[in-house]
Amino acid sequence: MNAFTPTDRSRAKRRHDRANYDEAAVFGALDAAFIAHIGYVIDGQPYVTPTAYWRTSRKLYWHGSSASRMLRSQAGGVPVCVTVTQLDALVMARSGFNHSLNYRSVMAFGTAHIIDDMDEKMRELDRFIDRLYPGRRVSLRANEAQEIKATTVIGMEIEEAAVKIRNGGPKDDEPDYALDCWAGIIPIHQVIGAPVADPDRKKDIPYPADLGDYEAGTSLDEVMLTVAKKLG
Amino acid sequence: MNAFTPTDRSRAKRRHDRANYDEAAVFGALDAAFIAHIGYVIDGQPYVTPTAYWRTSRKLYWHGSSASRMLRSQAGGVPVCVTVTQLDALVMARSGFNHSLNYRSVMAFGTAHIIDDMDEKMRELDRFIDRLYPGRRVSLRANEAQEIKATTVIGMEIEEAAVKIRNGGPKDDEPDYALDCWAGIIPIHQVIGAPVADPDRKKDIPYPADLGDYEAGTSLDEVMLTVAKKLG
Repeated sequence: MNAFTPTDRSRAKRRHDRANYDEAAVFGALDAAFIAHIGYVIDGQPYVTPTAYWRTSRKLYWHGSSASRMLRSQAGGVPVCVTVTQLDALVMARSGFNHSLNYRSVMAFGTAHIIDDMDEKMRELDRFIDRLYPGRRVSLRANEAQEIKATTVIGMEIEEAAVKIRNGGPKDDEPDYALDCWAGIIPIHQVIGAPVADPDRKKDIPYPADLGDYEAGTSLDEVMLTVAKKLG
Repeated sequence: MNAFTPTDRSRAKRRHDRANYDEAAVFGALDAAFIAHIGYVIDGQPYVTPTAYWRTSRKLYWHGSSASRMLRSQAGGVPVCVTVTQLDALVMARSGFNHSLNYRSVMAFGTAHIIDDMDEKMRELDRFIDRLYPGRRVSLRANEAQEIKATTVIGMEIEEAAVKIRNGGPKDDEPDYALDCWAGIIPIHQVIGAPVADPDRKKDIPYPADLGDYEAGTSLDEVMLTVAKKLG
């Protein structure tokens, strides 16, 4: 099984039991999510920018970052940390100290570059739509040259990555199990709502069947995984 | 109206129309969320750690960060960026270029310190439970001295902050409105599921009424705002 080799940068400092460096586990958590938080440094100051992202093999991509001006001036690329987090449940224990959260979180490290190669850029912009808005591309007009030019695509080969996952119920101190205190979990799901057609100059176009993965009431993480599997 | 004064650090570089520096808007977005992504720098390398957090006036708190070892060695504190993001909808336009997301996102900047003052630490640990697990504290055993000692609480006065919000439907290029292409939004909600009692040494304790804010089917952001308002 392929795995990332952790260094001090990605090795879990706490809760080793929750950490996993296998590609399959890391990719599984990355492919279930929509938004990443990108960390970068300008003049010693950290910045964290949220953005939609997509993955192609071991490479992560995003676009239009406010870091692009800085990136443009750094031919060698800049170190970034891409963190992707899903909150799965509130974990209510019998003491404040043992309260916790169920979550899935990836930290991926690498060097971010602006993608200037036109073939890679056009291919990845198509993949962006196919990944995040599956089934859309057939009904859209093609990208125009100046749109492609106006879009900054940023890529980062994952050099190392770790996923941390917490599952299950509360873990209490032994004596606390005797307390008359409700304990358990409250699940949290990111759920897809019913589509709302654009009222602006509305035409009577039905909701397309090929957006069917985005079915109202479904969990977004399940949809994202389904789409990732179809896309490969 | 109180507002944060942006410098280059927090002033929106793109999409100025979506940015707001008013305290009320920034606090509103912070109070609707559960998880923050904390950005910090060690030896030039950015790290982004997800964590539960809470707010007391202009100060943000979190606990148990993997940055705490570094913080311990930096008496003056370290610069951090705290980013809080909610995904509200996928925005499907009539061209790939005009696809977008509805979101609320705060970037807050400041200097993080370890809270060593015992009064502040105990008060804030109580507030942590009251804020994130409302109604719990009455039924829990009190914190023990070694638990308080073992918990690192980190605080950051917000020096500057901006919230960016995108709402509404797609904005298309004028000619594209004529296309036979469905356009609109797919709302995304973080929804609370039905509580699951801990099966471990289960006692027959009913789900407490004072957790009523966490009602199954409710949006987490609404619950968080309700709790924040009650708490003040």
